Amino acid sequence: MNIHSLLRLGLTASLVAAVPMTASAQFAKKEDAIKYRQSAFALTGQHMGRIGAVVKGEVAFNAAEVQKSAALIATLSTLPWEAFGPGTEGGKAKPVIWKEMDKVKAGADKYIKAAAELNTAAKSGNLEQLKKAFGATQQTCKACHDDYRDK
Amino acid sequence: MNIHSLLRLGLTASLVAAVPMTASAQFAKKEDAIKYRQSAFALTGQHMGRIGAVVKGEVAFNAAEVQKSAALIATLSTLPWEAFGPGTEGGKAKPVIWKEMDKVKAGADKYIKAAAELNTAAKSGNLEQLKKAFGATQQTCKACHDDYRDK
Repeated sequence: MNIHSLLRLGLTASLVAAVPMTASAQFAKKEDAIKYRQSAFALTGQHMGRIGAVVKGEVAFNAAEVQKSAALIATLSTLPWEAFGPGTEGGKAKPVIWKEMDKVKAGADKYIKAAAELNTAAKSGNLEQLKKAFGATQQTCKACHDDYRDK
Repeated sequence: MNIHSLLRLGLTASLVAAVPMTASAQFAKKEDAIKYRQSAFALTGQHMGRIGAVVKGEVAFNAAEVQKSAALIATLSTLPWEAFGPGTEGGKAKPVIWKEMDKVKAGADKYIKAAAELNTAAKSGNLEQLKKAFGATQQTCKACHDDYRDK
């Protein structure tokens, strides 16, 4: 191996090291990434629905149950985004997502923040605070769904 | 309304109150319950796979990443079981589950305990402890998969 090959090898290695590990690197197949983000959203949707039923007065306010749901939503809120890496188009995700990843990430950050605040509100045990934080979280969900999710 | 109607109404109300809320009561449709448990298992499988790759030496041991996965697995471990309520047959779940719910629940308890111990082991930052706890958790997964999951 000559000096040029060594230099080229060294350059390649440092380039590889410099590129942050993309989200999709965690997923063996595109389908795994799609399933992963859909699973996180499905669990989130179920628990948003449970808190929603309380907020709408359809179900009695059980603070412990609501706290469990809100804590889970906050935990799940950080998960889906790494599963939108390059080459993971599909599912209900509109292809425009991969052209507007900065906007998507900004929306995701707003949602993660809102979910954390929902969790805080749930811990307070105050129904009015919960209603407010739930409405705010729902809006961050809707913003992305309107733009980026197929009907 | 006569006394008999009132008594009947009272009896019905107390029977309803006496029956513990079944798991499936949280899900509007059977499909929602199936999707819910499958989503929890899918996220768990992905993160078990990530820790597994570390345990097998395929991926470098990053304690922070492993801790994140293990914490999530522990959180998710308690979720799927309420979604196996009466009338939620389907998906990859063998119908025998609903005839052996006591055994299923015992298996679920073992798994929840193992996942909590995996979380503790991950927090220790000790790779040998992690390997041991991961193997133990995997066995509790396998036990139920062998008996209750369609190939």
